Amino acid sequence: MKKIKLNLNSRSYFIYIGRNALNSLGGILDGLNIGSDAFVITNDKIKRLHSGKLEKVLKKSGYSVKYKMIQDSERAKAASVCIEILNKIALYDRKKRVFIIAFGGGVIGDTAGFVASVYRRGVPYIQIPTTLLSQLDSAIGGKVAIDLAVGKNLAGSFYQPRAVLSDISLLESLPFPEIRNGLAEAVKYGIIKDPALFTYLEKNYKKAFKFDPDFLARVICKCSKIKAGAVEKDERDKKDIRIMLNYGHTIGHAIESAGNYKTYVHGEAVGIGMLVEALLSYKLDLITEQNLLRIERVLENMGLPTRIKNLNLSKILKAQDHDKKIISGVNRFVLPTKIGSFKVCENIPRSLIEASLKERTA
Amino acid sequence: MKKIKLNLNSRSYFIYIGRNALNSLGGILDGLNIGSDAFVITNDKIKRLHSGKLEKVLKKSGYSVKYKMIQDSERAKAASVCIEILNKIALYDRKKRVFIIAFGGGVIGDTAGFVASVYRRGVPYIQIPTTLLSQLDSAIGGKVAIDLAVGKNLAGSFYQPRAVLSDISLLESLPFPEIRNGLAEAVKYGIIKDPALFTYLEKNYKKAFKFDPDFLARVICKCSKIKAGAVEKDERDKKDIRIMLNYGHTIGHAIESAGNYKTYVHGEAVGIGMLVEALLSYKLDLITEQNLLRIERVLENMGLPTRIKNLNLSKILKAQDHDKKIISGVNRFVLPTKIGSFKVCENIPRSLIEASLKERTA
Repeated sequence: MKKIKLNLNSRSYFIYIGRNALNSLGGILDGLNIGSDAFVITNDKIKRLHSGKLEKVLKKSGYSVKYKMIQDSERAKAASVCIEILNKIALYDRKKRVFIIAFGGGVIGDTAGFVASVYRRGVPYIQIPTTLLSQLDSAIGGKVAIDLAVGKNLAGSFYQPRAVLSDISLLESLPFPEIRNGLAEAVKYGIIKDPALFTYLEKNYKKAFKFDPDFLARVICKCSKIKAGAVEKDERDKKDIRIMLNYGHTIGHAIESAGNYKTYVHGEAVGIGMLVEALLSYKLDLITEQNLLRIERVLENMGLPTRIKNLNLSKILKAQDHDKKIISGVNRFVLPTKIGSFKVCENIPRSLIEASLKERTA
Repeated sequence: MKKIKLNLNSRSYFIYIGRNALNSLGGILDGLNIGSDAFVITNDKIKRLHSGKLEKVLKKSGYSVKYKMIQDSERAKAASVCIEILNKIALYDRKKRVFIIAFGGGVIGDTAGFVASVYRRGVPYIQIPTTLLSQLDSAIGGKVAIDLAVGKNLAGSFYQPRAVLSDISLLESLPFPEIRNGLAEAVKYGIIKDPALFTYLEKNYKKAFKFDPDFLARVICKCSKIKAGAVEKDERDKKDIRIMLNYGHTIGHAIESAGNYKTYVHGEAVGIGMLVEALLSYKLDLITEQNLLRIERVLENMGLPTRIKNLNLSKILKAQDHDKKIISGVNRFVLPTKIGSFKVCENIPRSLIEASLKERTA
């Protein structure tokens, strides 16, 4: 099992990565002096598949376990769900020794992390991500939020978990599209920060199709390290460091939103978003055509879509105008300058964005 | 105008105290570089009485103003109200330059502060307390929360305001019982930390009846300084320092709860709570009879109740058993040892609590 430290003074924690990492949970919790009562937020499918293993290890170490199932969709991030969970925890937390376990993908991690951040002004929580996307990205860094009627992620906190446990064996039960969804973010880490990771993905992507545990562990480790480094330097997303993680996401979010979060899953939208933003970069003479093609090829090889289908261009542009990263009317993009580095650019002309989107539309 | 600094590194802020302090708001906000759009959370009565002054000073300095009225009762701290406010802010916050103003008493300060702590993972907020209780106590220190169905203050944050503005002239429109409500907390500060303040209250309490601004300013200043000092040393209520502010509140909360928050207002319940807890202290040989009598007399002189009426003793004891300050079944009390100092005591026998309550029951 690999162990990566995320250094944030009193809020430092370890990210554990490995096959059967879950077996080490008891010892890890004991070392954290975290409480006695585990409140596990998960969904039906994950509970059915993996709760046996989790519960066994928790009970063996003397922790009580209570489950709260939420839906396997963005609807689980509704404020009403959050309140329902908070009341459930309050009823369960008789001894004031509760801690929260987020046992699931990004939606569960976001909701559970937010709930932990506000229940009694903050109780400890552990991230046990069960998807590739959450293992290599969203479970790390403490950016948690729920949705409001007006928009996504509008109520939230910066609230760090006490540990992240990425158990590779949990990924084995996933359908391949779920793995692909995570690979898109891995490609992102390669492009913005780690040329060796990018090259590794170019050469070894086929191993993903076979759920090769060494391949997965290596990719998760590399991405986790980059994410941890960005969070250490810019925990609250204020210093133009953590913003690099946004590469592909400005356009990606607009694509997701234009399709009402149904046409494309997150990784697919981010994949196309990275291509559109790389094209913007190319049009601004920041990146070579060769690198642009490398990005396209690796995504294509993984089976990710590289062109926008079944979506109205004007809808994407409108969603992009409303993007939350826009500060006082100025748009901001993280644009790759080569494989492994980027530049933050503001005020990209709308015509250039439109032209890039058009070129990537089927 | 007096100015007290609360030192918390990057979260430091000033508490401004004085007649017409509100007139300085524009300059204070400009200095904070806080955004451009003020979202004022208040209630109908305060808006009717004081919004003219507030709005004038905000608009003069170029800030836009939007009001959100909430109920003038604990019901305004319901989670559903919080979500409604968050959605309103999101609709108003077109330029992502919003900041929140809590314009009211403790309920408004709590709700507005919590909303500010989670909207977009935290936006700036200003406390402009309009009651004596909130000016000398609750508006300071960033302990904010809303209620859940299961219990009060169960969802919250530690989230510091960017400034606290205590405008004494806002108190002039209050009915006297509201002043008395705040005086009980002032007496608390004297007992736990400041014998000179206690003596000052003993000698000058009659000035409160006339809303004497110098008396009020002096009391608010002294209490604010003590509160600021406790918050500086123990922001997150973890080091047995901030706990001193709880004197009178363990029993006080139980009394409030036993009366469904209708029989006694907070200050009255805290007043009786302080007497019961001082009696506990006396029974444990920690405080002299003379000091016990001094505490009783000053509360009596202020017109605060000194005996429990119309409440079932067993109900109070039951509420006390559920007190949130109980850690793993052990009760904890802040007990005065003389005027100006205290001791934290655990595991006080239930029989002693019952006897003290009985002695203070009419």
